[in-house]
Formats: sequence, structure tokens, C-alpha cells
Amino acid sequence: MTQFVPRDPDFDARVRTSFARQRLMQTLGVRLLRVAPGECDMEMPFAAAFTQQHGFLHAGTLTSVVDSACGYAALSLMAPGAAVMSVEFKVNLMAPAAGERLLARGRVVRSGRTLTIVAGEGFMCSGDDERHVFTMLGTMMAVEGRAGIAD
Amino acid sequence: MTQFVPRDPDFDARVRTSFARQRLMQTLGVRLLRVAPGECDMEMPFAAAFTQQHGFLHAGTLTSVVDSACGYAALSLMAPGAAVMSVEFKVNLMAPAAGERLLARGRVVRSGRTLTIVAGEGFMCSGDDERHVFTMLGTMMAVEGRAGIAD
Amino acid sequence: MTQFVPRDPDFDARVRTSFARQRLMQTLGVRLLRVAPGECDMEMPFAAAFTQQHGFLHAGTLTSVVDSACGYAALSLMAPGAAVMSVEFKVNLMAPAAGERLLARGRVVRSGRTLTIVAGEGFMCSGDDERHVFTMLGTMMAVEGRAGIAD
Amino acid sequence: MTQFVPRDPDFDARVRTSFARQRLMQTLGVRLLRVAPGECDMEMPFAAAFTQQHGFLHAGTLTSVVDSACGYAALSLMAPGAAVMSVEFKVNLMAPAAGERLLARGRVVRSGRTLTIVAGEGFMCSGDDERHVFTMLGTMMAVEGRAGIAD
Repeated sequence: MTQFVPRDPDFDARVRTSFARQRLMQTLGVRLLRVAPGECDMEMPFAAAFTQQHGFLHAGTLTSVVDSACGYAALSLMAPGAAVMSVEFKVNLMAPAAGERLLARGRVVRSGRTLTIVAGEGFMCSGDDERHVFTMLGTMMAVEGRAGIAD
Repeated sequence: MTQFVPRDPDFDARVRTSFARQRLMQTLGVRLLRVAPGECDMEMPFAAAFTQQHGFLHAGTLTSVVDSACGYAALSLMAPGAAVMSVEFKVNLMAPAAGERLLARGRVVRSGRTLTIVAGEGFMCSGDDERHVFTMLGTMMAVEGRAGIAD
Repeated sequence: MTQFVPRDPDFDARVRTSFARQRLMQTLGVRLLRVAPGECDMEMPFAAAFTQQHGFLHAGTLTSVVDSACGYAALSLMAPGAAVMSVEFKVNLMAPAAGERLLARGRVVRSGRTLTIVAGEGFMCSGDDERHVFTMLGTMMAVEGRAGIAD
Repeated sequence: MTQFVPRDPDFDARVRTSFARQRLMQTLGVRLLRVAPGECDMEMPFAAAFTQQHGFLHAGTLTSVVDSACGYAALSLMAPGAAVMSVEFKVNLMAPAAGERLLARGRVVRSGRTLTIVAGEGFMCSGDDERHVFTMLGTMMAVEGRAGIAD
């Protein structure tokens, strides 16, 4: 496992401030559990308002939370002043997303100056039970000096 | 362009009934614009509740709508009794999702017995202006005879 | 369909010169058929040396040719002096790759300063018959001023 | 880490026999290092014949070897009689592929009856030095009873 050294000593506050501005995370009821250099964990309670036609969490709901966790894992390693944007990602849905809550884990695989490669996982949890239902591989970009875009 | 022949003559009603059960689509305010064999178009008005930290629609919001459009494009060609589930998809975010409404287009690229390959696009529209901001390539699966999963 | 204006008037010669230096293309027997702004087509004769265990062209062989076609579609729009590198791509294999030759088409979907989004297709052809077997969605990067990397 | 139980006690011989029939692996000079339930490792010496225009191994070369490693990781868990085919994969290229040899690791993330989710990694090695240059996330399919397709 790579040990990452943050370029910004205030990475924790910066991630939390940006997360608080993601309106979608509030709408979904997502809680930011943990930030560390190159790592971010989040949790969302199951809610019927965000399901697909079979009553499971919608693929887009899972994607929303894991993408945010991955984006903030990436931002935790970016230079002060940079903003993070998702360039692309690919996801696999491995089992129906049923359970009490979604646990989302974002991890940096490789941190570059402009591009950061991230891996994300989604687990559906009920009591002590945890099921791996979702996996993501994606690319985040550090955006600097673009008007109106700041984290 | 391939011409697809639906295996189910009632494909239109079947897609609309299933769409009406996707709670996430109601939550996002998505409207089903059009269903044709192997094709599905949807529209969602911009709403701040589904944005990321820079005020654009969140990548997960775009993914939700385009994934549903792709899923129903696939379902329109499936045999009666089959349910559709997303296996995997990959998306590219090409420009910030600002504008009055999101137009999502799902198209079948190849229709197999079990797996259907789909391509999706997302456009942000304001008045007559339309900007291509999102593209998806994915795989949908026909699920048959699994308890509790039906479209 | 977007009309692209090349940033480099010598894009055709530049792509052909770089292609001639791709040793893998020579090894595979690939021929560069056509270059246009944001477009590149290539052809490879079927050869048993590049097959998988069932006698079809290997997924990696298809990927090699379509990735090169996509890379050169991207390079055709890059500023003079920039080199092209693949950042990431996703492919779907839609049918076994049997036939006399592979036709690979690379197209730019969106051309940015640093990142270019590309779409690629692979067709297996025999006589007049053409079968769509492969599709790619990926990201290319313009690399400037890095020692030893030039197109 | 999940512990997998192979459905076929002869999985090792079956993988090695199929690998020996992959002509592309012979052409590339790939060696099968190790097979275990849900795991497969391979090695390929660097060779200029398989490079891109900057002298690094081509993205398609890396993809070929890692896709094979992932495919055989999947096959190691499939029922007797099933053949493996790549459905789709997504790769990220994280650093130029320079070095003495490529080490490819394929791992099963989730093993289903029809679909197997796989993760692959590519490392460029020189002496004791090892650099993580490539990552893959993909889907393999068990094909049964299709004429002419057997592993």
C-alpha cells in the first residue's frame, strides 16, 4: 500500500468544507466518516426515494456516493488552490444494493500533478453484515485557475 | 444504424410501467420523453438539490438519468418476462453540467440474449442551446426467473 | 457531428510519421488507411499469431489497433509539439473476432487542451461482409515538454 | 480477501492447457507464473516489437497480458466444461511502461454463475525495482454449450 504525503497540510478541513457544499450529498443524507491522505469514507442510510424499480438503491445513487468518496480521496492529496473534478469512471454492480446503509470507500491508486487515479468500493451493511456490491475505477483532475471553480 | 425488432410487442407500456416504479426518477423530477425499439430519451430539469460543490449537476446525477435511459433502451428489446439490471458502465464527463435541463439519450448498440451493450449521451440544454457534456458505454443484463425481480 | 479544425496544419504527416514508429503496428501488420481532423482508420489482416484460445483475434489485439486509431484521431487535433498518450479506455467485446481483416475506426468526441475524449469501433470484414465486434470509449492526453516523449 | 473454492478440481491443468493455446501469448513471449483459485500471474519480457512510438510497451500489449491473466483467474473458478470470454474491461495507464519485464496479476473480485468480475494489475520490473503502471477492471463470461468454443 502506497503511503501518501498530502501537499496541503489543511487537507482535512478543505475536504470537509467542500463536502458540505455538495448539495447532492445532503439530499441523499450522506455522512462523511473519515478523511486521510488519499482516503475518504462515507455512509448513506438506505432510503426508498433513491431506489430503482426493484426496490434496490439505484446504480446512480451508488455511483453518486462512491464518486464523491473517490473525488475527496483525490482532493486530499491535491495542492492548495486546486479544485477536483471527475474526468471519467467505470463501475461494476456486483449484487443488488439492499440493506440498511451504504458504506462507500474512495482510495487513491496513483496521484499525479494533473490526474489522479482512484478506486472506490461500495458495501451494503445491515447490522454486522457487510456485502461488497459495487466497485469503481476512475480518474479525477486537478483544476487550477478556472473562474468560478474552487474547492 | 441497426434496426431492432422488439421481442415484446408491449415494450412501450412495459418500459413506462417500470419507469414509473423507479423512485429515484420521481425524486429527480425526470420525465420519460420517448421509447422506441432500442431507444429511450429522458429529460430532467436542473435542480440545485442534485449538484456538486461547484454548482453543476453531480456526476452521479447525470449517471442516474443516463443509466436509466440506457436500461430502458435495453428493456425495450428484451423478451417478455425478463427484468433489466445494470452490469457495468463507464462514463466520461466532458464539460460542467450547467444549464436549464438535462437531456439523456440511451441507445442499444448490440442486443444479445443475456447481455445488451448500450451507449448513452447527456446534453445540457438552455433555450435552444444544447451542449454535449456526458457519454456512457455500458452493459445491461436480462434477468429471468429470479424471485422478487420483475419489470 | 462536430467539425474539427486542426491546430496543426501538418497533422497528416505528423500522424503518419508517428504511426511509422509504432513497432507494434508493424508487428501486427496494421495499415493506416485514412487520417482526417479528429478521425483515423486502420486495417489489420487476420493472423493466427495474434489469436486467443478459441482461434479468434485476442481482445488485446483488437484493443491495440483501435487504441492506436483513437490515439491518432486525437493527435490529429493536438497543437504542434504535443505528444499523445492513452490515459484510459474501456472496451466492450460484442462478438467473436473472426474474419479476414479488422477495420478499426477512431473518432474524437471532444477535444480539450489537455484531454481528448475518443470513441473507437472495430469491425471484422470478410469479402463485403462487415460485423461490428468491438467498441471503445477512452481518454487521450496531450503531453508537452516531457523529456524523450515526442510525436 | 475472499477465499474462493474452485468448482473444477482440475482447474490448474485446465488453465495451463488453455493458456498454451493462446497464440498471442506465445507471440508476446508470455510465461504463466502461477495459478490459484481466482488468481493468475504472468510475466512478459520487454521486447521492442511490441512498443508504441515513444519506445514504451504499447497500451494494447499491456492490455493483452493483463486481460489473459484476468481471464484465467476467472476460468480457474468456472464449472467444468465452461469456456471463458472477455465481455468488457476498462484500463488506466498510470506511467510509461519501461523496464525489463511486465508482471501481470489477475484476480477475481466476484465469481457469479455467468459473469465474473476481475481486477488486474501491471507492473514494470527491472532488477528488484517494480513500478505499478497499469490497472484493469473487467467482466468475464462463462460460455457453455456454444459450438466450437471450449477451454
